[in-house]
Amino acid sequence: MKITKAVITAAGANQRTLPLQTLIDRDGQEKSVLSIIIEETLHAGMDNICVVIQPGDEDAYRRVAGDHAGWLQFATQEEPLGHGHAVYCARDFVGDEPFLHLVGDHLYVNRGDKRCAQYLVEVAEAESCAVSAVQATRENLLPYYGTVSARRITGQSDLYQIESVVEKPTPTQAEQRLFVPGLRAGYYLCFFGMHVLTPTVFSILEPLISHLPHFADHSTQNGTNGTNRPSVTLSDALNELAHREQYLALEQQHDTRYDVGVKYGLLTAQVALAMSGQDRDEVLTTLLTLLAQRELSSEA
Amino acid sequence: MKITKAVITAAGANQRTLPLQTLIDRDGQEKSVLSIIIEETLHAGMDNICVVIQPGDEDAYRRVAGDHAGWLQFATQEEPLGHGHAVYCARDFVGDEPFLHLVGDHLYVNRGDKRCAQYLVEVAEAESCAVSAVQATRENLLPYYGTVSARRITGQSDLYQIESVVEKPTPTQAEQRLFVPGLRAGYYLCFFGMHVLTPTVFSILEPLISHLPHFADHSTQNGTNGTNRPSVTLSDALNELAHREQYLALEQQHDTRYDVGVKYGLLTAQVALAMSGQDRDEVLTTLLTLLAQRELSSEA
Repeated sequence: MKITKAVITAAGANQRTLPLQTLIDRDGQEKSVLSIIIEETLHAGMDNICVVIQPGDEDAYRRVAGDHAGWLQFATQEEPLGHGHAVYCARDFVGDEPFLHLVGDHLYVNRGDKRCAQYLVEVAEAESCAVSAVQATRENLLPYYGTVSARRITGQSDLYQIESVVEKPTPTQAEQRLFVPGLRAGYYLCFFGMHVLTPTVFSILEPLISHLPHFADHSTQNGTNGTNRPSVTLSDALNELAHREQYLALEQQHDTRYDVGVKYGLLTAQVALAMSGQDRDEVLTTLLTLLAQRELSSEA
Repeated sequence: MKITKAVITAAGANQRTLPLQTLIDRDGQEKSVLSIIIEETLHAGMDNICVVIQPGDEDAYRRVAGDHAGWLQFATQEEPLGHGHAVYCARDFVGDEPFLHLVGDHLYVNRGDKRCAQYLVEVAEAESCAVSAVQATRENLLPYYGTVSARRITGQSDLYQIESVVEKPTPTQAEQRLFVPGLRAGYYLCFFGMHVLTPTVFSILEPLISHLPHFADHSTQNGTNGTNRPSVTLSDALNELAHREQYLALEQQHDTRYDVGVKYGLLTAQVALAMSGQDRDEVLTTLLTLLAQRELSSEA
């Protein structure tokens, strides 16, 4: 199995301006969040990239993509019907091939030699199946992530067979249904924000989307798109995927994801990038000087 | 003298996307850099604000201005002819009144009760003349700022009579022409990025601009707009202003400016805002945890 296509979703209401923000990457270069995500996919060997956006955002995205703009195709999510629907909007781009999927509001810092997406793609190609990157995550963070129940594959330190997927489980749901032997107590395997998926996911998403209550009926309250509209989560589709075909979880034990969509998420990601990059000493000095000055001045 | 109009310049080639960036302000609210600058002018009592932009940027600026969009007028700088020319583009908006001028790539953190621009406007109204905020700045930073020679006004701790202004002086120029008695050795009074100016500045700028070499002649190398085009600095006009009318410098002794246009400028400004705001403890904990984790991991 060879993977060459990447789908980046950036159409969420609270997500669409995040890829336009500017950070300084580990190489010391100023880039948009979008460019950093695109480079993560290029390092993983992708040569076709589709960004799922809200209508009207294409020009702004092209501008901040810099030299990478030529690589990009765009798919438009016309209505905010959830993350599953956003991925579904890229079905024509993907066609009948497996694809790498990254969310537009996460950045990654790898500790080892390989970039996170590169390692995920290598594992998926070797195993010839869908693989979601996951990370052992503390119970208090469950409200932010899709979470899997899984069985560790014998003889593998970081590969699991996924049995089910639950979007943003409660602690009780997690304790009852998502316990994974071998993890520290109170930790669960939560999505890391990158997946290699097979086109099967589109045939799973299609009936979920076509059976949504009529879009105009705003009184319906379900889904996770933060509005009263019905929506389709990606987790629901991936739960079904686990029942249809081989679907693995790759545990990222040493790398870190940074959600730039949370409060101070951009700041945290910027510090993490700088601390892992070539400007480490410069930024460490700047930060500590600033903190020391503010401490002194607040005592004065 | 009553000041009610503000001019924010944001048309510089390396400056135009900075006001669009998102930071979290001291009040814990996520805002664009533009909104934070607008609020600095509102706190200073301004009720008319003009932003000088490059052609085509108005929609993007309106979007990130949020609730403040209704306050804004725009003036377009059609060609990159320097900071002096950018200010000149706001002449119809300003008319025959004094005005507050802020640059679009600086943020301010005040230590005392008064916001920097508020204090500057109060001083200018009391003195009824043009006043530029300045800060004692180390010699190594001279390449970034307009710098003044000035005489401290007897009996005032922070007010100076400006005698001349030089844009980005060399250390030799500064030593010979910009020495200010009473400052620490190696320190000069550099612009802080905010001024109250009188309309006289437009009548000074007009002949400077109309005498520019023909714009199409790209072989001319002067000015400071980073291109081969001729340009008009604001400092040249302010140097002339010092000879025409009363023009003071207000030394900001306790407040700090953050240039978000330099490398890691956004990061530094964000940390400074957070350390001076309501989220101080949360951000301090986040930063120190992150630094400690990265230190530990780099030792592992």
